[in-house]
Amino acid sequence: MAEAKENVLMEKIVSLCKRRGFIFQSSEIYGGINGFWDYGPLGAELKRNVKELWWNTMTRQRDDVAGLEATIIMAPQIWKASGHVDTFSDPMIDCKTCKGRFRADQTNEIPCPQKPSKMVSECHGEKTAPRAFNLMFQTYVGPVQDESAIAYLRPETAQAIFAQFKNVLETSRQKVPFGIAQVGKAFRNEVTPRNFTFRSREFEQMELEFFIKPDEAVEAITSSVATPATKGHPCEPQPNWGRQLWHHYWVEERIIFYEGIGLPRTTLEEYWQKPEELAHYARATVDILFKFPFGTQELEGIAARSDFDLSQHERHSGKPMGVFDEELRAAWAKLDDAKKQELSKRYYEKRLKYLTSAGVERVAAEKDAKEDADGLAKGQYVPHVIEPSAGVDRLILALIAHAYTEDQMPDEKGNPETRVLMKFHPRVAPIKAAVLPLLKNKPELVKKALSVRDALRPHMNVFYDDAGAIGRRYRRQDEAGTPFCVTIDFETLEGTKSGSNPGMKDTVTLRYRDDGKQDRVAISELLPLLLEKIR
Amino acid sequence: MAEAKENVLMEKIVSLCKRRGFIFQSSEIYGGINGFWDYGPLGAELKRNVKELWWNTMTRQRDDVAGLEATIIMAPQIWKASGHVDTFSDPMIDCKTCKGRFRADQTNEIPCPQKPSKMVSECHGEKTAPRAFNLMFQTYVGPVQDESAIAYLRPETAQAIFAQFKNVLETSRQKVPFGIAQVGKAFRNEVTPRNFTFRSREFEQMELEFFIKPDEAVEAITSSVATPATKGHPCEPQPNWGRQLWHHYWVEERIIFYEGIGLPRTTLEEYWQKPEELAHYARATVDILFKFPFGTQELEGIAARSDFDLSQHERHSGKPMGVFDEELRAAWAKLDDAKKQELSKRYYEKRLKYLTSAGVERVAAEKDAKEDADGLAKGQYVPHVIEPSAGVDRLILALIAHAYTEDQMPDEKGNPETRVLMKFHPRVAPIKAAVLPLLKNKPELVKKALSVRDALRPHMNVFYDDAGAIGRRYRRQDEAGTPFCVTIDFETLEGTKSGSNPGMKDTVTLRYRDDGKQDRVAISELLPLLLEKIR
Repeated sequence: MAEAKENVLMEKIVSLCKRRGFIFQSSEIYGGINGFWDYGPLGAELKRNVKELWWNTMTRQRDDVAGLEATIIMAPQIWKASGHVDTFSDPMIDCKTCKGRFRADQTNEIPCPQKPSKMVSECHGEKTAPRAFNLMFQTYVGPVQDESAIAYLRPETAQAIFAQFKNVLETSRQKVPFGIAQVGKAFRNEVTPRNFTFRSREFEQMELEFFIKPDEAVEAITSSVATPATKGHPCEPQPNWGRQLWHHYWVEERIIFYEGIGLPRTTLEEYWQKPEELAHYARATVDILFKFPFGTQELEGIAARSDFDLSQHERHSGKPMGVFDEELRAAWAKLDDAKKQELSKRYYEKRLKYLTSAGVERVAAEKDAKEDADGLAKGQYVPHVIEPSAGVDRLILALIAHAYTEDQMPDEKGNPETRVLMKFHPRVAPIKAAVLPLLKNKPELVKKALSVRDALRPHMNVFYDDAGAIGRRYRRQDEAGTPFCVTIDFETLEGTKSGSNPGMKDTVTLRYRDDGKQDRVAISELLPLLLEKIR
Repeated sequence: MAEAKENVLMEKIVSLCKRRGFIFQSSEIYGGINGFWDYGPLGAELKRNVKELWWNTMTRQRDDVAGLEATIIMAPQIWKASGHVDTFSDPMIDCKTCKGRFRADQTNEIPCPQKPSKMVSECHGEKTAPRAFNLMFQTYVGPVQDESAIAYLRPETAQAIFAQFKNVLETSRQKVPFGIAQVGKAFRNEVTPRNFTFRSREFEQMELEFFIKPDEAVEAITSSVATPATKGHPCEPQPNWGRQLWHHYWVEERIIFYEGIGLPRTTLEEYWQKPEELAHYARATVDILFKFPFGTQELEGIAARSDFDLSQHERHSGKPMGVFDEELRAAWAKLDDAKKQELSKRYYEKRLKYLTSAGVERVAAEKDAKEDADGLAKGQYVPHVIEPSAGVDRLILALIAHAYTEDQMPDEKGNPETRVLMKFHPRVAPIKAAVLPLLKNKPELVKKALSVRDALRPHMNVFYDDAGAIGRRYRRQDEAGTPFCVTIDFETLEGTKSGSNPGMKDTVTLRYRDDGKQDRVAISELLPLLLEKIR
């Protein structure tokens, strides 16, 4: 029952997205292409606003984050080092009878193409054993299509950040702790794309890799590593923060970001992965989940990835990824021997664990881990990383699902009517204000309306609409999620005889999307008022 | 001699790009990947600013353009319809002796891999006849790698706009003439990427497809089609504009855009392609060229593409791409018979020319062209299009090359020193203002500087730097292209005894990048002053 209701909601959302130009099926005139979605005029604006706010919050408003914009196609060695070539795959089986290929873990859910009354697991087709199907899209770079020309479309934006870590560090005047931020497309050849834009094959990510000192370095410098008293925001970053507090900090910063664009904390869930759920490189991972109509699903993952990625690239490229930390070197010299030994031992063990898990043989791993521990004493280490990784498309879908509202509002004749409105936060709303002359065929109204449009437009995205009854124009803007409508009417030209501004000319009707209420506002006060509200 | 000087300049630019974090080689730690470039912290900001200004100018500041953000991978039929599958290729030859593959038109320039003293055209290797090598990157979508799963990375963003033309038209409340704008990545498997980022395999485009009425429709509505008196800006769009005037309009609008971001008209060249140079779909094309250090090369192409693309998609998808124009229908009814016949005949002939060139057989083409001409009389047509198509990466390279400046400026001791500065227009400069406390170890200076930083930061990208001598910090900002440095010094805290603000506290030094001059400015006046200058 509940599920049926939620399916209806999803259908309404998908229908509105197409009807109003938020989201179209890619290549729709050719029957579409499964797992690919285009953003129409309203969707493109919504997405730009979200990406711009993320970039501004995560990069421009901070001293400790630098930006990056790397290519989608990179050297294939990157995906070898990251583990994607070897392990980024789903198990697939082939049916020799129908020639179909299916995910081995979904044969109970997929109907047989030849006998749809049975599931693939029940049908009589002869199946192969499961084989790994890599989810990276593959192509060839250069004129010759051989093994050496294979390249991949990046399945995540993160690895480019790791590969360029040293270049950014050396050119941006940053010191650990600091982050590198990137927004961009990624591609995964999902076997079964689903839930509208939630799981698609081409998508966009907003990723921050925030590099921190290993806990042992923090402890050497500040005597002890602070531990979080509770979950929640641990305040401004402090020198004695280790992995745990930085992790808490970023979880909370990200939730504050979502609140700031109109997803209240009550719509989100914080899920701390259990140790057995963690990816092999992760010390801890927190998923921020959103209650989508089709279920509570991940919006963002915030992983403490240790020094795994940089270490992998160091080993695979032969290029050093470590940093020299003068503060650590100076602090280390002042430690007593017992402390030195304790920290060295802990660091040695962590490095040994990484190296053996990465396939380095025991003797060589022990030698390397020893060198790493000796390096720490000289102020050298490979930074650890906290990774807040958000999916743009699923965030857009969350914003759309959360904004979708139906209410009852009287129509022009006073009869109650169901109204669809998109309650976007003004910060992300595709159109901030619609400017509407009451009538199209009154030149004075049109002229005044155009002057209001031109005054607002340099400061915000404005939509000018002069066609149709004013009530219908309001409804169209409600569906587009426009928080403010500005109507130029005869009172604008002549002034009112009563009301809050009796006799005053140059006022407009300011109509609010959410409750349909209307104020009378002087044109001279309109821009500062709207700027305040969309900030 | 001139060439040598320009090579030196290019080398300096490439070196500065890497040294200051504008542009890095993609996957550099793995030896790079030919034809792929990453944007570092300064480059990413520069690129964002340019893309944002383009989007704002072309979309948000206009009533007649809607935005789109489509996928990179689309249905392969799109590239069949556009002609890319059949004709987007370079001729290649294989050498059976050395197994090399070379562009057939470059065999005189490429040394033989086995005998580098000879060119490929002169060596004794046995060569195949030239074969077409398609420049689209190919991949497979879905779990099965067969013919039906082939897809391409888009070689241009334009085709997505044509494919979604009807969806955008129906959802955006636009009427012809109107445009659809898109910014996004495109990919071409260039055989020989070259000239730094100018010709790379992964690049970004900013494209507008501006749809207009066919000239015959304009003439039916407004009696005659206006013709351009001269080149240059033909003023605000008028109802009697046909293809020619819209084309002139967009050429001029685009040049005005370049002027607005710091490329004076004198650095650009307008090149009107000769009839024999035009692509088969183009009625006219204007290239906007920039004088790069390696030669005068295309920055943007503005093509009048007729109704070719929409017509191709109509034929290939079977979905109608025409619009109904009530104004045309009404106007046509009032024409005299001679005029009707004349316009019908002209329209018929143009459609017939398109259809036969598209491979439709004569009899069928005549029938279809007749139907199209009959449609025109009822207010129906497939819109024509003007396409201003700009390359983001080559524009960034142009901005960098134009900004690169060396001058002589005295160092701290008054000795002349060669200074490198990037004279970016403040609108595109990655960092708008640097905030610098004179000394790092004076808490009052640092505290004041941080408060200035925090006051500016919500409004612009600000860089805070407290390390090193103030002169060296200025030089670093000069190289980053930061137009303004704000220094907090002892006068800020105590006031001056002389000068323009004698005795006044809370003033800062505002230092200008281009001439190194310094003003004394009250902190309270700083934000409005800077906002005015970066607008």
